Amino acid sequence: MTDMLEFGRSVLEAQPFSRLLGTELVVFEQGRAELALALQPEHLQQHGFAHGGVVSYLADNALTFAGGSVLGDSVTLEYKINYLRPAIGQRLVARARVTGSGKTQAVCHCDVFVSGDGTEKMCATAQGTIRKAG
Amino acid sequence: MTDMLEFGRSVLEAQPFSRLLGTELVVFEQGRAELALALQPEHLQQHGFAHGGVVSYLADNALTFAGGSVLGDSVTLEYKINYLRPAIGQRLVARARVTGSGKTQAVCHCDVFVSGDGTEKMCATAQGTIRKAG
Amino acid sequence: MTDMLEFGRSVLEAQPFSRLLGTELVVFEQGRAELALALQPEHLQQHGFAHGGVVSYLADNALTFAGGSVLGDSVTLEYKINYLRPAIGQRLVARARVTGSGKTQAVCHCDVFVSGDGTEKMCATAQGTIRKAG
Amino acid sequence: MTDMLEFGRSVLEAQPFSRLLGTELVVFEQGRAELALALQPEHLQQHGFAHGGVVSYLADNALTFAGGSVLGDSVTLEYKINYLRPAIGQRLVARARVTGSGKTQAVCHCDVFVSGDGTEKMCATAQGTIRKAG
Repeated sequence: MTDMLEFGRSVLEAQPFSRLLGTELVVFEQGRAELALALQPEHLQQHGFAHGGVVSYLADNALTFAGGSVLGDSVTLEYKINYLRPAIGQRLVARARVTGSGKTQAVCHCDVFVSGDGTEKMCATAQGTIRKAG
Repeated sequence: MTDMLEFGRSVLEAQPFSRLLGTELVVFEQGRAELALALQPEHLQQHGFAHGGVVSYLADNALTFAGGSVLGDSVTLEYKINYLRPAIGQRLVARARVTGSGKTQAVCHCDVFVSGDGTEKMCATAQGTIRKAG
Repeated sequence: MTDMLEFGRSVLEAQPFSRLLGTELVVFEQGRAELALALQPEHLQQHGFAHGGVVSYLADNALTFAGGSVLGDSVTLEYKINYLRPAIGQRLVARARVTGSGKTQAVCHCDVFVSGDGTEKMCATAQGTIRKAG
Repeated sequence: MTDMLEFGRSVLEAQPFSRLLGTELVVFEQGRAELALALQPEHLQQHGFAHGGVVSYLADNALTFAGGSVLGDSVTLEYKINYLRPAIGQRLVARARVTGSGKTQAVCHCDVFVSGDGTEKMCATAQGTIRKAG
């Protein structure tokens, strides 16, 4: 495990909400971050799918990690998410990348996939602005 | 309590993720919905504020309830959220309204406020599209 | 006419693209801006409505003026627009307001209306981030 | 030239606003569209860059063409755009692709590039929803 991934995991571990949801940081490198989460019954909405709030939490957090990989300690200023299909499956993965960045802000994209039974399908896609904290 | 509010609460109660977070439906009427949540330690991120994922979950859900108030059973197609300030306080409230609607889709806005110590401040604002389910 | 409105009009007049489209600044005051445009045949798309690009240009520009009214010389960082109905009529008006602002950025909303034959209907709504230039 | 590109060009030619701006359809194939525009003095804003309205018009239109390539006659429901840098140069190119689609709607992405003096730089990136017309 790289030092950068180890550092990123310590940041994630310091987020009580991410511990509550059981999020893992899978990839964290210059310009890129990947977060994953095993879907549990308490992550669902009334139709049995992952709640949109879980999907967008994961996208938002992955966008921030991707931006943070080039900016340092960062916050999400804003983002937009499109849900493509119901998130039905065992596991969510959010893959985020930096599309463009300056000294204090980065524009990032993130695709969220749901997997289960050997398949993986994109269930959401997001675009947002990350700002260096402080 | 109106029948509509009672019905809305039964929908919210059927969302395991909303029960996990402790969300309440405060207002649910034609074109308008208000959701609230008492902030708990497990809702925070590493800087001690409410995690963005909690704020956007509440906005997303309030947008869907607002849209659902005119469309019936509904899902969020997409939304965009701007965070205005760190959500520091005891309670989050998301107030959503329908800005325009047709037969199958509605465009809604939502402001999220954080309150505590007798003050209430807007901490996020969102705009999204809700679609009739099915 | 206030000095502020006069100043705003000189800024608009300095935008060749706004002159090409015939845009007027109707209101420009602390936290608020209103731009209008008489629809011409060359503003349309293939179905006879105002082209989405004209509607979003007007929204984008009104957002920037609203943000600029509190920040000074400004640029749009990003915005999102929902089209509510085809823009059929004689005149477009974009009404923008500041929803929240800090020292260097403002979050603004804008509604765009199309009018003609004595009626006025909202045809689009937008939300965006404006940043102080320089 | 393929029949599809020829057809797309006839659609673009039928948009008075696109003729006013001098837009060309460079690529139009299943899931992908590319629009380009030679920057003229009347496309600028007060600082000498392409007006944001020109950049977002091109992105919006490219998103609609990309969506239309899989849905048929289409309109943009909503989109979001982030400006990455001032659009300084001779030519704008908007490259759009379908990220996910169903029977009546498609989610598309578009990157806008500005070129001049042998270089090409991304100046904006957009994400939106396209809906089949009618």
